[in-house]
Amino acid sequence: MIVDKAIYCGGVRETISGDISDAFNDARSRGDCFLWIGLHEPSQDEFDLITSEVRLHPLAVEDAIHAHQRPKLERYDDTLFVVLKPLQYVEESSDIEVGEINLFLGRDFVISVRHGEADPLGGVRRRVESDPDLLAAGPAGVLYAICDQVVDTYSQTSHEVEHDLIVLERRVFSGEHGDVTEDIYSLKREVLEFRTAQDPLIPVLEEIVKGRVELCAHIREQFRDVLDHLLRVDTRVDEHNELLTSALNAHLALVSKEQSQAAIQQNADMRKISSWAALIAVPTMIAGIYGMNFDHMPELHWTLGYPLSLTVMAVAVVIVYRLLRRSGWL
Amino acid sequence: MIVDKAIYCGGVRETISGDISDAFNDARSRGDCFLWIGLHEPSQDEFDLITSEVRLHPLAVEDAIHAHQRPKLERYDDTLFVVLKPLQYVEESSDIEVGEINLFLGRDFVISVRHGEADPLGGVRRRVESDPDLLAAGPAGVLYAICDQVVDTYSQTSHEVEHDLIVLERRVFSGEHGDVTEDIYSLKREVLEFRTAQDPLIPVLEEIVKGRVELCAHIREQFRDVLDHLLRVDTRVDEHNELLTSALNAHLALVSKEQSQAAIQQNADMRKISSWAALIAVPTMIAGIYGMNFDHMPELHWTLGYPLSLTVMAVAVVIVYRLLRRSGWL
Amino acid sequence: MIVDKAIYCGGVRETISGDISDAFNDARSRGDCFLWIGLHEPSQDEFDLITSEVRLHPLAVEDAIHAHQRPKLERYDDTLFVVLKPLQYVEESSDIEVGEINLFLGRDFVISVRHGEADPLGGVRRRVESDPDLLAAGPAGVLYAICDQVVDTYSQTSHEVEHDLIVLERRVFSGEHGDVTEDIYSLKREVLEFRTAQDPLIPVLEEIVKGRVELCAHIREQFRDVLDHLLRVDTRVDEHNELLTSALNAHLALVSKEQSQAAIQQNADMRKISSWAALIAVPTMIAGIYGMNFDHMPELHWTLGYPLSLTVMAVAVVIVYRLLRRSGWL
Amino acid sequence: MIVDKAIYCGGVRETISGDISDAFNDARSRGDCFLWIGLHEPSQDEFDLITSEVRLHPLAVEDAIHAHQRPKLERYDDTLFVVLKPLQYVEESSDIEVGEINLFLGRDFVISVRHGEADPLGGVRRRVESDPDLLAAGPAGVLYAICDQVVDTYSQTSHEVEHDLIVLERRVFSGEHGDVTEDIYSLKREVLEFRTAQDPLIPVLEEIVKGRVELCAHIREQFRDVLDHLLRVDTRVDEHNELLTSALNAHLALVSKEQSQAAIQQNADMRKISSWAALIAVPTMIAGIYGMNFDHMPELHWTLGYPLSLTVMAVAVVIVYRLLRRSGWL
Amino acid sequence: MIVDKAIYCGGVRETISGDISDAFNDARSRGDCFLWIGLHEPSQDEFDLITSEVRLHPLAVEDAIHAHQRPKLERYDDTLFVVLKPLQYVEESSDIEVGEINLFLGRDFVISVRHGEADPLGGVRRRVESDPDLLAAGPAGVLYAICDQVVDTYSQTSHEVEHDLIVLERRVFSGEHGDVTEDIYSLKREVLEFRTAQDPLIPVLEEIVKGRVELCAHIREQFRDVLDHLLRVDTRVDEHNELLTSALNAHLALVSKEQSQAAIQQNADMRKISSWAALIAVPTMIAGIYGMNFDHMPELHWTLGYPLSLTVMAVAVVIVYRLLRRSGWL
Repeated sequence: MIVDKAIYCGGVRETISGDISDAFNDARSRGDCFLWIGLHEPSQDEFDLITSEVRLHPLAVEDAIHAHQRPKLERYDDTLFVVLKPLQYVEESSDIEVGEINLFLGRDFVISVRHGEADPLGGVRRRVESDPDLLAAGPAGVLYAICDQVVDTYSQTSHEVEHDLIVLERRVFSGEHGDVTEDIYSLKREVLEFRTAQDPLIPVLEEIVKGRVELCAHIREQFRDVLDHLLRVDTRVDEHNELLTSALNAHLALVSKEQSQAAIQQNADMRKISSWAALIAVPTMIAGIYGMNFDHMPELHWTLGYPLSLTVMAVAVVIVYRLLRRSGWL
Repeated sequence: MIVDKAIYCGGVRETISGDISDAFNDARSRGDCFLWIGLHEPSQDEFDLITSEVRLHPLAVEDAIHAHQRPKLERYDDTLFVVLKPLQYVEESSDIEVGEINLFLGRDFVISVRHGEADPLGGVRRRVESDPDLLAAGPAGVLYAICDQVVDTYSQTSHEVEHDLIVLERRVFSGEHGDVTEDIYSLKREVLEFRTAQDPLIPVLEEIVKGRVELCAHIREQFRDVLDHLLRVDTRVDEHNELLTSALNAHLALVSKEQSQAAIQQNADMRKISSWAALIAVPTMIAGIYGMNFDHMPELHWTLGYPLSLTVMAVAVVIVYRLLRRSGWL
Repeated sequence: MIVDKAIYCGGVRETISGDISDAFNDARSRGDCFLWIGLHEPSQDEFDLITSEVRLHPLAVEDAIHAHQRPKLERYDDTLFVVLKPLQYVEESSDIEVGEINLFLGRDFVISVRHGEADPLGGVRRRVESDPDLLAAGPAGVLYAICDQVVDTYSQTSHEVEHDLIVLERRVFSGEHGDVTEDIYSLKREVLEFRTAQDPLIPVLEEIVKGRVELCAHIREQFRDVLDHLLRVDTRVDEHNELLTSALNAHLALVSKEQSQAAIQQNADMRKISSWAALIAVPTMIAGIYGMNFDHMPELHWTLGYPLSLTVMAVAVVIVYRLLRRSGWL
Repeated sequence: MIVDKAIYCGGVRETISGDISDAFNDARSRGDCFLWIGLHEPSQDEFDLITSEVRLHPLAVEDAIHAHQRPKLERYDDTLFVVLKPLQYVEESSDIEVGEINLFLGRDFVISVRHGEADPLGGVRRRVESDPDLLAAGPAGVLYAICDQVVDTYSQTSHEVEHDLIVLERRVFSGEHGDVTEDIYSLKREVLEFRTAQDPLIPVLEEIVKGRVELCAHIREQFRDVLDHLLRVDTRVDEHNELLTSALNAHLALVSKEQSQAAIQQNADMRKISSWAALIAVPTMIAGIYGMNFDHMPELHWTLGYPLSLTVMAVAVVIVYRLLRRSGWL
Repeated sequence: MIVDKAIYCGGVRETISGDISDAFNDARSRGDCFLWIGLHEPSQDEFDLITSEVRLHPLAVEDAIHAHQRPKLERYDDTLFVVLKPLQYVEESSDIEVGEINLFLGRDFVISVRHGEADPLGGVRRRVESDPDLLAAGPAGVLYAICDQVVDTYSQTSHEVEHDLIVLERRVFSGEHGDVTEDIYSLKREVLEFRTAQDPLIPVLEEIVKGRVELCAHIREQFRDVLDHLLRVDTRVDEHNELLTSALNAHLALVSKEQSQAAIQQNADMRKISSWAALIAVPTMIAGIYGMNFDHMPELHWTLGYPLSLTVMAVAVVIVYRLLRRSGWL
């Protein structure tokens, strides 16, 4: 689907009223002009319309239609094929959604192909149109603006990841670790996906910054700025990855500690319980003895037999209590 | 065993009726033709037949017969020797089977040697024969089609691995972790074997993409496409490897957690049990005392002795119950 | 905010009384002079004043205003843009605070932009002013002095980290491990932040030491000295990172050990308790039997029945005691 | 000790009857000949005899006498010094024994110095002598044959390690893990030693394969074959190392699991035991009450007192049993 | 403090009787001579004396006075500044002491500055003086001899570390693991310090071996020998580091195993104890019932009541015993 199309001449946007083919010819004849055609998940047919005007390499076109590429920059004769993977952080599920933007750039045209629902390119077009410097830079300016926007999504996402990580850390160390293991693992998975989207963009931008991409050489300092942001994100992503591993280990150590303390507590409780049981068992045993029905048990006939037996019980309890106290069980 | 042999001239397949030797001469004299001979686990004798026509380096031939090579590309004067390792995922056992394809390529011939039961080359031949562009590209086109097919088996296998990993993750976090440790380990072993098959192919394709392999230089953009797919697989394999390590750690943390909770539960249960035991032990002891047979136990002769003793028991139980309640044991 | 401004000619500081614009012209006309303007979190307006005199690249100016850059060195035509990240160790919270210094350097000027509260540059200016050699080296001398100062903050911070690590180690191995897990994790986070601030400075200094930065080439041996300090810090930071991982593992091993010993102790205690319980239960059972009220219990009528029963109890206790002793339970 | 010495001319072995010095002169004068002197742990004196004929660098000679070198290739003017470390797997102890072979190669001589008891060179000499192609390749042919043999010992050893690893895995996952931890650690140590012996040989062979070693350039394709085998071993060694780490972690997870299950089992058992104890304690308490000797206990005189009391006991048991059942303790 | 000073001409040591200044002039005028001045923790003043004769870079001098450098090689015009870190293993504390040697080398002088108590240079001077070849090599010979000596201290220390590691392994696997965790950690710290001292020396020696250091180019083969030793140590240090990590993990696994076995043992013991308790509780309950004082308990009046009750008790015990046996509790 063609989302937007326009011709930019001398810093002014002109709508393309008629045929795309005419627009191309128009742009070429006037010079200092370029076309920007924005597509969203186009079909082969839609592509064929455009390809009849500009020579795009069939393999690149196939990539652009099927998506699922990794970030890359490919040079075909006089056109450039660039793949970018913008990210979007989904608040509700703490998920990272990976989009895809495919770009064809020539001296006088930009064809942007977007996949996925998120629309990071609308804002870019508005920014480009309102910035004469960018318009003057031509297709390279558009590429710069898009790269800047994509790296911005990385930056935002990495801040969200940082935030999630801090929440996880708090949960790990507050002891309220419900499903903290699963959440750490999930975030690690997200971070790895993040890295997969972002890492291959570094050499792409380095290539441009070093001036090896002719089409963009005149504004490579702008790209250096984007690369700088990207490198900062990159460092942070690696840091997050390393911290998540440490957080899992820390969680394990805390759980082990908890378990160790439970074991120690349990032993202390068991000693206390057993001690009290012993204290009750001793007089019960004595009472049992004097409950026996032998004919000849002299103590039973003593006048003081009963109070004496009670005294014996009490003394036994005191002695056992002292012994337990001394050995630290009570 | 010769599986298939044909001569391709101007995009048309011609069956070789007679001698291979004649076919070679035929191909050379007509130009723009090439032979494709497909072998399956050939013997030395079968090879000798062919080698009498084209000069293949004896070491390469030995490699091709004995198999068990790592993916590589070797240049011998005017021939190329390429080893590829296709994968096959076996659904029942979740195993990855590693095959081997050895290729000899010259200006006007392709000799493909397949080892193992799987037959990924049949489909490739049909594809090549039905695609005039590939046929026009000559032996390089065949190499491209085979590489594409092999990387495709990687891509499929890595999707299967991803699927297995997701199942494992679900088992780890659902708590239903029967033999999850063994399954994580097994999958890790599979992933390492995967990497061994796939990793050395990267420099081979890079070599071709950079145009350093003369025979394939004219369609190196096609190879770039294959390399791209391979790099994507490569990233995913590394990711899987890292995630499996994390999954094992997460499993360990969960088991420790489970154990910790079991220990805490056990302590709570033990306290409850002991409390109830104490509640029963106290009246039992009192009953024991009044069961003693002393002649002079005044309480026994009181009219209210019995109800009083029961009251004492009840009061004792209530007091002990309250004490236990207050200290949180009941 | 302009913190300080001065013109340095032939090793002497002259205060700028009038307009900055005049000062620039003055410096240029006299030769062998340079201006040093120190800013603290300047606004765009304050910058515009200066930028009207010297051509600074707008992207660099934007970076300098918004801060949050990574250490880097960028060349723009005839000016140099350098970002440095000084550190400050906060004693109370054991936190590392990361500051930021942005520097613009030209043949005849230095513009330093400081962010954050800490003021590492005041001391540097005093050092430069009192050292004729540094003044003679011009802007490069200032850059050297600032780099030296920044790397010095790294060196001090890494000593503090070393100290914190040693305290942690002592806590881990003394068994008094209260929140040691959390503290190890926190320190790891600090160390990673440290590395983020310090690591990208290495290639910056290497660039200068190799003489690739024209402006600083004449004193690159001084920079080599700074690089040397930085590399030493770098090694130490990596070492700390590795040791913290080991410390967490060691802590885990010790906690497991503790737990293992608790379990063994508990088993020993349980055996002892149960043994004593058995010793009491046996005579209680015997007493119960002779407390039965059957009419025909011959033993009850024996003259020696009672002492005999007591003897039986005692013998039973001794036998059980011996058995328990022999099996190691008592 | 001189183990064997011979002169090879035009593919034929000739025994050296007389002086080594004469043999050298003989070889040089006839051309297309080379001497191969095999030494076993030679003394300085034995070396001096030979060194008087060919110029060997004193440091290399020292290395060759004292052994304990790492695999390397050194060029001295017109001679080559190569150190190789063959391995031998000792079946009984599952140990890997590391040997050492030092080689001096010139245009017309090979001096091989063997250390350790194992004799991998005897077989090599027989192979060289029976292979005219190798003999024709001169000293380089000998070097090739020895390298091939050494890498073969690596290949065999790595198969043995693989086998040991599989046995370990089976023990880990079968639960029969007696001293499995120690055995995993020992195998890891072996694997690291293996890597130390094998790893430095890779750059040596790469050097030769790239044709940078003049003496061997004419058969570098043969060496590529050896390098290929070595790289395959190398991958496998890394894989083993990684798998051993995983196996230890898996073992730890399984032990924790076992422990966790023991804790859960123990809790279940404890609940069951306590429940049965409670079931017995309740009627015992009731019996105790009716065993009291109060004069006025009306129930005792009821005709149905006894069966009633038994009924009360039974009912109490049933109620308690039901309660325990409902709460899942029985 | 000047420890030793001498002038070496044509392989002969001559003591410097008079002024150092004269000695320098003497050496220069005679040619083929060089001075070697040995300093121990010199003050700035002592250095000034020497610096008046030879031009040493002030930064290098500062480094040499303050020590705490990392191993490095710096070229200043016509002098070389080298820092080395010899190690010393302290038997009693199993500690590694790190020393420091700073060297200034010129065409005709060596100035060695030693820090710390250990004196590795005395032996070196004696070795150099007794070896005409080394003396003939001039200052480069001295540098070689010192490097050789320093790497020798590494080699010895790594043997001591190996020994400590083996002792630790034995303690880990013998089960006698008292403070084994702490000792593993300490050794890891030592190994990391070792690596810090030794690692940066590798590029220094590589520089020399590649012939990029003019002063030492004529004996670079000797340095290759030192580098070889160093690389061997380096491999071993990495191996030790890796093994220590594995040893800690193995220790953890063993402790967990121990704990797991304690838990299983405890459960077995608990079952046994409870079983015996049940065996005693049953007859006690029966005895309690027949101890009740109901008027109408027919069994009490049976002639065989008593023996019957005993039989019931015995039968109950046997039945319970059998049940417990069958369920594996006894």
